[in-house]
Amino acid sequence: MHSVIDLCNQLFPERGEALSMAWRTRQLQYTWLRALMTQYADFWQVTDEALQAAADSLQLDLTDGQREQLMDAYLALAPYPEVAQALGSLRAVPLAILSNGTPRMLQAALDSAGLGEFISQIFSVDTVKTYKPSPLVYQIATDKLGIAQRNIGFVSSNYWDIMGAAAFGFQTFWINRSAATPDRLGFEPQTELSRLTDLLEVLK
Amino acid sequence: MHSVIDLCNQLFPERGEALSMAWRTRQLQYTWLRALMTQYADFWQVTDEALQAAADSLQLDLTDGQREQLMDAYLALAPYPEVAQALGSLRAVPLAILSNGTPRMLQAALDSAGLGEFISQIFSVDTVKTYKPSPLVYQIATDKLGIAQRNIGFVSSNYWDIMGAAAFGFQTFWINRSAATPDRLGFEPQTELSRLTDLLEVLK
Repeated sequence: MHSVIDLCNQLFPERGEALSMAWRTRQLQYTWLRALMTQYADFWQVTDEALQAAADSLQLDLTDGQREQLMDAYLALAPYPEVAQALGSLRAVPLAILSNGTPRMLQAALDSAGLGEFISQIFSVDTVKTYKPSPLVYQIATDKLGIAQRNIGFVSSNYWDIMGAAAFGFQTFWINRSAATPDRLGFEPQTELSRLTDLLEVLK
Repeated sequence: MHSVIDLCNQLFPERGEALSMAWRTRQLQYTWLRALMTQYADFWQVTDEALQAAADSLQLDLTDGQREQLMDAYLALAPYPEVAQALGSLRAVPLAILSNGTPRMLQAALDSAGLGEFISQIFSVDTVKTYKPSPLVYQIATDKLGIAQRNIGFVSSNYWDIMGAAAFGFQTFWINRSAATPDRLGFEPQTELSRLTDLLEVLK
């Protein structure tokens, strides 16, 4: 998400931090709320609506150009520097993406990050028209890969996503880069790591 | 919620605001996440887990006594001063509560606030083991009251709750006391009011 935060700071030097936080908070909330309301709209629309509501809440007037620029940041998210190396070290394992993003957003971000060669499949929640942490989302992976959930390792930096995956029965690896404290949602991550490059070590 | 915020400030003079915000944020998030994960736990448990996770996130050591005192604040929430008058003015309409709270929490809060005489029925999500804004929750009211959704007026200060109710088909009245900006979730409140006492006027 740092690409998005950087651009917020660049466009609104005084309010960039506040805007990016208000935006991200709403983006996640809207996915949960729409999923619960059974009123799915895709992640591009939700992200755009969250941006506008975040700007409203801060009394920031976004120009159409700024709005477009901020949205486009989602098509070119910069990976952490060690990601290519980490994914490269896991070549023996088939790697897939399972994400809230739309297929277009995911393909664009993957291409822009130059990580396409490491990923064999991309699964979007758009297939099932709901959002994480619904079990219907995690089931996309078992259905499409034909692999039982206990044989799938699920990696995320989002603790709540790890909880959804744990509830569904995946093996879970929480990348806790910022040393966040866990939430309490009835499950535990199986493994906690501080960086993606530590994954190879624990899989050995 | 002001009773809870006041107690947080009293117990932790420097960190009360931060604790009450972190607690409330998690409390709502955990209801949405558990509902989506299909891992229901009742609102008392969720509220307690949210409190502990909020304290963890702020590196605050809660004693058992403080934790109990903070939880008990939910059994004695102080109503805004005009609420009794507002409810009294609506005696011609059957009034019911539809809430995330457990039956015990709702009964205790109602008794403590001295508002029991105005309320004919109390409906808790505990009946359907999920949380707002799931349509299953709003349907408790239509099922139990035997009234179609378009003939039920739904009043809340929570915009997201109003959205869920609007999606379900209730008439909606958003009490926007703090002049908050709306979220963008595909629906609009039918009526926006700044205080509960304004409700009688719009119903006339």
